[in-house]
This record gives sequence, structure tokens and C-alpha cells, in this order.
Amino acid sequence: MKEIVILGAGYAGLRALHRLQASKGDFHITLVDRNTYHYEATDLHEVAAGTQSKEKITYAISDVVKPTVTTFIQAKVEKVNREEKSVSLDNGQVLNYDYAIVSLGFRSESFGIAGVEDNALEMVDIESAEKVYQHILAQMKDYAKTQNPDDLKIVVCGAGFTGIELLGSLVESRPAFAKIAGVAEQEVEIFCVEAVTRLLPMFNEELADYGISNLKNWGIKFLTGKPIKEIKPSTVIYQDDKETGTTKELSANTIIWTTGVSGSNVMESSGFSQRRGRVVVSDNLTDPDFENVYIVGDVSAFMDKESNRPYPTTAQIALKMGDYAAKHVLAQLDGREIPGFTFKSLGSVASIGNTHAFGLVGKSAIKGYPASFVKKAIMDKSLFATGGVKEVLAKGRFDLYH
Amino acid sequence: MKEIVILGAGYAGLRALHRLQASKGDFHITLVDRNTYHYEATDLHEVAAGTQSKEKITYAISDVVKPTVTTFIQAKVEKVNREEKSVSLDNGQVLNYDYAIVSLGFRSESFGIAGVEDNALEMVDIESAEKVYQHILAQMKDYAKTQNPDDLKIVVCGAGFTGIELLGSLVESRPAFAKIAGVAEQEVEIFCVEAVTRLLPMFNEELADYGISNLKNWGIKFLTGKPIKEIKPSTVIYQDDKETGTTKELSANTIIWTTGVSGSNVMESSGFSQRRGRVVVSDNLTDPDFENVYIVGDVSAFMDKESNRPYPTTAQIALKMGDYAAKHVLAQLDGREIPGFTFKSLGSVASIGNTHAFGLVGKSAIKGYPASFVKKAIMDKSLFATGGVKEVLAKGRFDLYH
Repeated sequence: MKEIVILGAGYAGLRALHRLQASKGDFHITLVDRNTYHYEATDLHEVAAGTQSKEKITYAISDVVKPTVTTFIQAKVEKVNREEKSVSLDNGQVLNYDYAIVSLGFRSESFGIAGVEDNALEMVDIESAEKVYQHILAQMKDYAKTQNPDDLKIVVCGAGFTGIELLGSLVESRPAFAKIAGVAEQEVEIFCVEAVTRLLPMFNEELADYGISNLKNWGIKFLTGKPIKEIKPSTVIYQDDKETGTTKELSANTIIWTTGVSGSNVMESSGFSQRRGRVVVSDNLTDPDFENVYIVGDVSAFMDKESNRPYPTTAQIALKMGDYAAKHVLAQLDGREIPGFTFKSLGSVASIGNTHAFGLVGKSAIKGYPASFVKKAIMDKSLFATGGVKEVLAKGRFDLYH
Repeated sequence: MKEIVILGAGYAGLRALHRLQASKGDFHITLVDRNTYHYEATDLHEVAAGTQSKEKITYAISDVVKPTVTTFIQAKVEKVNREEKSVSLDNGQVLNYDYAIVSLGFRSESFGIAGVEDNALEMVDIESAEKVYQHILAQMKDYAKTQNPDDLKIVVCGAGFTGIELLGSLVESRPAFAKIAGVAEQEVEIFCVEAVTRLLPMFNEELADYGISNLKNWGIKFLTGKPIKEIKPSTVIYQDDKETGTTKELSANTIIWTTGVSGSNVMESSGFSQRRGRVVVSDNLTDPDFENVYIVGDVSAFMDKESNRPYPTTAQIALKMGDYAAKHVLAQLDGREIPGFTFKSLGSVASIGNTHAFGLVGKSAIKGYPASFVKKAIMDKSLFATGGVKEVLAKGRFDLYH
């Protein structure tokens, strides 16, 4: 019997699991994840801002595992030993495999900027997202006692997709934050510091402006074209003037880092040919050096032949990759050939708070409340696609007509 | 204990049920429907064309009924006796109520055109939709024996939303039909006869053209600006020239009537102030004459104050109406007041086959495969909104990443 290991229970990994479990064949699956639950990485900003509880964006991995076919092991992957066809786990176990689907996900990327790890909060999993929320609450409570003005300041570093969605959710939570601190809403100041000036390059200027100007109208203060040079305790140091290189300081007791992500560091420590934790994969999403090792999701770089750049990492492509990897394993097991992986984005929609969103469906711009409805419909669908079926219902995620 | 009757288990009725069952209060609900199952009226065209089985668009009403609060009775409503606060059923039962939510749905409307009932197929419920499909199959089989050219012709009367979606699905089924008949695909001819020339007035011309020209490219023959005068057996008689009034005949052994719908005839027989089975309701969606009778869904006409015309009947407004009626009943029970019903369309998307769609999200036009993805996400969400939760999963409706 062939052994398939799936490393990581994110969008890509669980999608592959779902597809494999739906097929019949002479194989056994071992799924490894460091947690006992799956979380929706695209919704971490809501946990960080406190607009969703972690229960609403997680479900037990055991709910989607068919025990007759799949063994689930809760452990951290330490190393993929491709020559030996084995995986070393932090609990000392070594798993042998015929096929590996590596879907180890992302981590925060500091780009070498000093002080990020020590002095900024990251938002990369449920724990870190919850920590952001608890941290903000603590500052608000502290303000009520100490009147330290920096307690009321929240800085989001980075105005990418995640940063923008986080800002939208923070706006929604601001009244609750202000109440705890005992101040008027507008006294809770939210900043966004970003190196580039043209934000959200995946959208055209009009659409990006729609999103940004909504956030500005709600009181977000944008510092764009200001590369961050260092994060000191409670202080963001950014370049204020490119010509002279002059820097300025912005003090705040909450500093959240969302400027970028890279793939899991297991990719580097296992000796994959990677850059920032991402491996440029073959047409079949396999490691160029090992045909039995699939690399999918945020650790994978699949080249867009048109732009000659890898597709950006999104939940959408991760789901498609997981699905393809499973199909290709099944084809290999049957001795069939299937065409290479292709990807065409359906578009993407950014939510800013609970009732506003903007983005693209195909090439069409959508915005406002209807866009927010579509965004929720798409997110439910993505939750289903990983197989987290019982929970969607329990969570009332479908109930958007209220 | 107060008694609430809900008449009809369509979008509006089940949405009201869902909302009431989710609340606590000193009331009992009786739900009446002529079937034991709910069906998705917006998907009947797929059953008619054979691209979906009826199982995929229906679920058991018992699955969404909480027996501790709600009694379900399978029966036909014969009359709502508003003065007596009672409902007469065709099984002889008389139900007394404190509040009635009337959501009896639609029926086909012939507009007095001769021969429609006798010589055209309607598509108003699961039985009639299935009958369309079986009828087409029978013609194809007949052709294989008799070579009667009319067996290969399908006429869709009406190019409204439903007609257009039906045409899209028929295109998808055409290869299967042709195979049964033993002919080349293009020999199965599909026509659409429609009185007006500007199709799909809810969309702008560019978007409507997108949909129509796709259908034309796939071989649909449109006869627009041709009002139907009569349906004779296997023959559609339409006005060919408005000036002269000349008529022409189109012969076909499958004629499907989709030109329009009216509300249930129970509205008329119960003495409601109605027009084509629809009652112009108050701001609270009640009968203008009886405050304890809510009229929602396809039997309800709620005025759009901007256009001074009733909103078109759609699943979207039906769901919103059912929700509001339940909320208003709960408010009445508590002696609370709530603001009147308001409606703002999120837009609408028409599917043409499984991978194409076009429509509006808010005011933005979307089209193509991404639109088709959005359409499916929205339809899933509408299925959830009525509470049909277990079935969505069993049906694999969520599994669109394949």
C-alpha cells in the first residue's frame, strides 16, 4: 500500500486531503499539522481586531479526517528528507512516504528590518492574532489608568491586502476600544505606514482609491511612501524623505506587522531550492528535483508564463494547487498522465469591515455592500472547499440575510 | 400560546420559519406546503434541461422543522379566511391562527393567450420541470424512429431571466439530446420567441448583449419583437409584423412557456385585493386590511418608492421579506415597534450553462467564468438562508473547485 503524507492542514493541504479521501485507491494518508484545528488564514485580521472569535474561523481537523484512510498526527514538521523519502517530526517520529504533499504555509517576513521580531506583533496564526487583540485591549485598559497617549495609538505596518482588511476591522472595533479606554472614538488613532505610494497594485487606481478613501474617511491615517527602517519598543522609525533619507518616529503602544510573508522555514532547513521559503515548482507542482514531492500553497511558487513572475500566494491558488496535487498523485498511482497545472484567478475581493468590500470578479470591479455579500459567499465556499462542513453551519456563517 | 401559520415552504416561508425557530417566545408554528420537500425555484431550469437532478435542488422540509415548536402539514391551501383568522386545507382541516405568513409562491401566467395551458409545457415546480425534461427525451427517442423534424425543435417562449437561463442549460444538454436522436448537435434546433426587442431590461445593453450574443454564438435562434398570439399543438403562432399584423407559425414538438408568472390563485379565491395573484402590501408587509396577515414572496407586491412600481419578484427579495415578516411578528408579540421593510437589491446574476454567467453585483457588471463562480456561491448562500443545511453538503453543491 502506498503512503501519502500531507504536511500542513491549511487550504492547500486540506483540499488535497478532501480530494484524496473522495477517491478510492490502494493508499494510506498521514496528515501532519502542528495544531489540532484548521484555521482560515484569510480571516486572521478579524480575530486580531476582535470582530470574530477564533471559534468562528477554526474547525477541528478530526472533523474532516476519514479514519479508515487517514491518520492525523499533531506535531511540528522539522525536516523533509527527500533522499530518504521521510519526514522528521518534533516528537521524534519519522514518517516514510511514497508521495509527499508539502503545504506548510507562511510565516511573517521582516525583510531584515531591525526590531520587527522583538517590537512588533505578528498576525500569522490563531495564537498571534489573538495576542494582537488581547494586546490592544490591555493598552485600552492601561490608558484608563495611566492616560498614556501612546496606549490609544495603533500602527499597522504594511498596506497590502492583509493590512487593508485589518484596518477595516479595526475601524469596526474602534468604538469598543474607545469605550474601554474611556475616550471618544476618534481619540483611538489608527495609522498605516507603507513604503510604496501606489497601494493595492492588484486593483486599478479607481478601485484601490475607493477602498483607501473609505478607510481615510473613517479616520485611518495613512503614511505612504514611507519605508520602515526599524521598529524600536513602542516606536516605528520610517524614512520620511527619500532624497535626504531623513527619518521620523511614530510612537504607539500597538504595532502590528503585516508587510509581507514568506514560506515556512522548513523549506530552507530541508535543503529545498527556495527563496524566502518558496520553491519554484514544475508544471505538475512537484519539486524540480523530486517528482514524488508536491509543493503547494504558500511554500510554492508557480510561474505565470505571461508575466514571468510567480502567482501571488492566495487561498484561491492554494485550494487549486491542493486539488491538483491530489489529482496528480492519483494519476501517478493509476499510471495515467494528466495535463499540467494552470491557474486563472477568479479575482479577489477585500473586505473593509463587515458591510463594505471592494475588488474584482474576473476583470470587473465590484464595491460596497453587494461586494461584501459576495465576499462572504466566496469565503464560505472556500471554507467548504477544505471540507469543513459541520462547522460552517454551527458557526452560522451562512446566515447573512440577517 | 399564540399560533403562527406559514403557508408555503419556498424561500420566503422557510426563511420566516428559520428566523422564528431561532427565537424564543410563547408561540407555536404550523407550516403548510403541498409537498414534503422544499425546492429551489431559481434552479428549475436545470431540472427542465436535465443538467441537474431534482435531488440536487430539493430537500426534505422535515430537515428544517423543529418539532418542539413547529408542526408541518402536507396539504394544499384552499382558502385564507381572514375574518375568521383561519385557513382551509384541501384535506378538510381548518387551521386557526393569530398570525399568518402567506408565502404561497407563483404559478405560470398565460396572459390570456389561447392554447398555452393545453399546448405548452410550463416550468413552475419540480413535477413540471421534470416533465419538460422527460418530454424532450421522448421527442429525441421518437426522432430516432420517425425522423420527424419537429422532434428536434425546442421553442422557449419568453426571453426573461428564466427563459435565458433555461436556454443556457439547454445548450449544455444539446449534445446529449443529439446523441439520443442520432443526429449532429446542430440539428437539435433551439428557438426563443419573445415579444420585446430589448431583452433583459434589468441589465444595461452591453451586459444584456453579452449574455444574448453568447447564446446566439452557441446556436440559439432568437425571434425577438414577435408577440406570441396562440399556441396550437406543436405550433407557436407569433406576430411577425407589427404594422400589418401578419402572423407566422413555428412548428416544434417541444414548446416551453416561460413568459411570466403570477402569484398563487389562492390569493384571488380568498378575496385578497390582488392583481395577478399579488397583493400590494403595507410597509410592514401586511395585508392592508388585516394587520395579522403577512404577504411575502411571489404573492407580495412591495412598492419601490423611487420607481413607483413594485419590486420584481426574486428569491433575494423573498428571503428578505420572509425574514422581515418573522421579525415583525416577534416584535408584535413583544409589543415592540420596528422600522418598516426596506429593500435594496444586491444585484442579480444569470447563469447560462455551468461555466458562464453575467449580471450585476450592486451596480457593477460581471461576466464569464468568474461570474459563474459568484453565481454558485450566491445560490449556495440562498440555500443556506432557508435552513437547508444538511443537504447542501450531501449534494456536493459547495464543491466548486473541481
